[in-house]
Amino acid sequence: MKHSYISHLYCPKCENTYGTREQYQLCACGSPLLVDYDLDEVAKNVTPDELPSREPTLWRYHELLPVEEESNVVSLGEGMTPLTPFSELGGNMGVENLYMKDEGLIPTGSFKARGAAVGVSKAKEVGVKELAMPTNGNAGAAWGLYAARAGMESTIVMPDDAPKITRSEVALSGANLYLVNGLISDAGKIVGRAVKDYNLYDASTLKEPYRIEGKKTMGLEIAEQLNWIMPDVILYPTGGGVGLIGIYKALKELKALGWVKGKLPRLVAVQSTGCAPIVKAWEEGKRESEYWNDSETLAFGINVPKALGDFLVLDAIYDTNGCAVAVDDKSMVKEQERIANMEGSFICPEGAATFVAVRKLRQNGWIGADETVVALNTGAGIKYPDTVQVRPEILEKDDAIVKVDEGLAK
Amino acid sequence: MKHSYISHLYCPKCENTYGTREQYQLCACGSPLLVDYDLDEVAKNVTPDELPSREPTLWRYHELLPVEEESNVVSLGEGMTPLTPFSELGGNMGVENLYMKDEGLIPTGSFKARGAAVGVSKAKEVGVKELAMPTNGNAGAAWGLYAARAGMESTIVMPDDAPKITRSEVALSGANLYLVNGLISDAGKIVGRAVKDYNLYDASTLKEPYRIEGKKTMGLEIAEQLNWIMPDVILYPTGGGVGLIGIYKALKELKALGWVKGKLPRLVAVQSTGCAPIVKAWEEGKRESEYWNDSETLAFGINVPKALGDFLVLDAIYDTNGCAVAVDDKSMVKEQERIANMEGSFICPEGAATFVAVRKLRQNGWIGADETVVALNTGAGIKYPDTVQVRPEILEKDDAIVKVDEGLAK
Repeated sequence: MKHSYISHLYCPKCENTYGTREQYQLCACGSPLLVDYDLDEVAKNVTPDELPSREPTLWRYHELLPVEEESNVVSLGEGMTPLTPFSELGGNMGVENLYMKDEGLIPTGSFKARGAAVGVSKAKEVGVKELAMPTNGNAGAAWGLYAARAGMESTIVMPDDAPKITRSEVALSGANLYLVNGLISDAGKIVGRAVKDYNLYDASTLKEPYRIEGKKTMGLEIAEQLNWIMPDVILYPTGGGVGLIGIYKALKELKALGWVKGKLPRLVAVQSTGCAPIVKAWEEGKRESEYWNDSETLAFGINVPKALGDFLVLDAIYDTNGCAVAVDDKSMVKEQERIANMEGSFICPEGAATFVAVRKLRQNGWIGADETVVALNTGAGIKYPDTVQVRPEILEKDDAIVKVDEGLAK
Repeated sequence: MKHSYISHLYCPKCENTYGTREQYQLCACGSPLLVDYDLDEVAKNVTPDELPSREPTLWRYHELLPVEEESNVVSLGEGMTPLTPFSELGGNMGVENLYMKDEGLIPTGSFKARGAAVGVSKAKEVGVKELAMPTNGNAGAAWGLYAARAGMESTIVMPDDAPKITRSEVALSGANLYLVNGLISDAGKIVGRAVKDYNLYDASTLKEPYRIEGKKTMGLEIAEQLNWIMPDVILYPTGGGVGLIGIYKALKELKALGWVKGKLPRLVAVQSTGCAPIVKAWEEGKRESEYWNDSETLAFGINVPKALGDFLVLDAIYDTNGCAVAVDDKSMVKEQERIANMEGSFICPEGAATFVAVRKLRQNGWIGADETVVALNTGAGIKYPDTVQVRPEILEKDDAIVKVDEGLAK
């Protein structure tokens, strides 16, 4: 029994292949590299019924992850986040079987921890001593902290207006933190130069092959949590798009293994009307997106004007008969409040965007009333406290509460 | 097979007993009430080896929890938080087997979710329509959100200077939120009056019997995660003390069941030097604490000048040959940074306090080098972002990173 059944890296554009024990970034042709596994051997050696008794982290799927020596695993207990039924919100929307996959319950409070855990572990395995990356905040927090746990140096560049909490996380990790008076694309240029100047490992989105393998585990978990019966629709807030690409990859691998059957879920990329390059490309039937000028949205994590992996996101949408939807910031904030109020969960605006999209797609009939729908909440609401405006009544010590609302009597 | 083997409520002071299907608050004698179970029946019907395949939430221990009908469970997927090895920090302190139980990875980002999940579920079961409570922030956030999920009204009063994020959480839940220009004890008085005036269910610490049952699951999980071999020492940041009381209760129940053997771990209550009533009482060999005047600490969650359950905390310490330790705010902040840097985890100041205490107790020999030590981190660091001061370098778009530190070359 091997810890990992990784076989090789391959380029989805030019089909070149690479080994798994050296440091690689992009393919020589400029495309991101993907990881392949010996799925026949996995199918022979593992069955889904041994999974329930494994530890409740993403490492329960280690055969389908790229880390070859268990001792290289860098873990903070990430994964197996809840798949929570949202019956009341679902009723409100007319979607009977609505679930939230809650990526707020993971180290560093966002789904970025998955990519960082697997990416840093594999970086350790191939001998990386220092990495660098640009970030809108959450990825930097995750990679900075996991790098710290691995004893690895990191250099992280983020826009000056990225969420303040993520800045604290990166700084506390001991990373070399720089702010840039610009967008993530500007941070990316600075990182690109530093990578060359100082020969660093570039951990930017899709510039190393392993982050996507971590994100993939969201798809594996959703399938396991639904007892290997695939949902009809999965919605994902899409910036760089790695989450969606990862889920798509996971479901295809599970199908190849024979662990799930039938049609793949329709995958939906959800963006903000203030930054919707994938939506535009999909509407125009294109296979790649164009740079979105003057992008702006309070959902900071999906403010990505042009994703390196846009073609992979669009492939996933086309292949599964999915779609792409843009929603506005005002609707996100309203849905965020409704979810707290109805379901008791304080989710991030990006996550709220996926529920706005469910609402829209149900209204226009794209989602049926009896379909099983999984919406991804990519992070904890507490990471973006400023999206909530609060003006409570202030009492003095000897004051009493005076209730006038008739709904408040027991 | 019953869902719960709860038998009755009892008073640890006057030994009066009560039923489990009505709404009770304190005992007629003024003491908190505790929950008892028919442990013989549990032992007959459940064995620890069936647990690993159950869902990774605190509800895996449903036989030892008070909710009698499964349909009353109000859950956001809480529990089975990681027990993470802290080898590097442990090495730094001279404690070989050091673990962190990470209560940051739970809905609402703090251990308060456990008490709220079980407390609100049982409140629903006994017909509560509206609850009220004072809070230093995290408990209010948890109870507000779980009450929202249960469709229950809530009234929550917190000090004006409680963490702002918790204020947003409560407001977003739709709770009736009030701030008070004072301490949690002032908030408590206002709640007490509202409870009488409007006939509300008082969900204040230990004024209802079930919150402690939720907290108890931390002890159950620690035992299961260590394969039913008890650690030597468990340290808990102690404000109201319910976490520590709960862990103690859990371990005694596990012993009665025969699932664990040997001596109970030595329980350590950790407080701030700015608010250390339990430490003072323990140092003086007393069974109850005195009100701590002018309390002040940045670890807001343990700023409790006089806990209703102080005698239960002290009992737990004396019974297990534990101790009580006060640590200063400056050391907490320093340890918080060291933990992020060495272990990659951004924990809350209260959690950091427990590690300062480990360091102290190792230095004075109270903890041995080869003992297994579990320190509780009660919440995510991202809930208290203001404890971290960050002043990173700001770059313009065309700037380059200039590295001078020799440690930064690959």
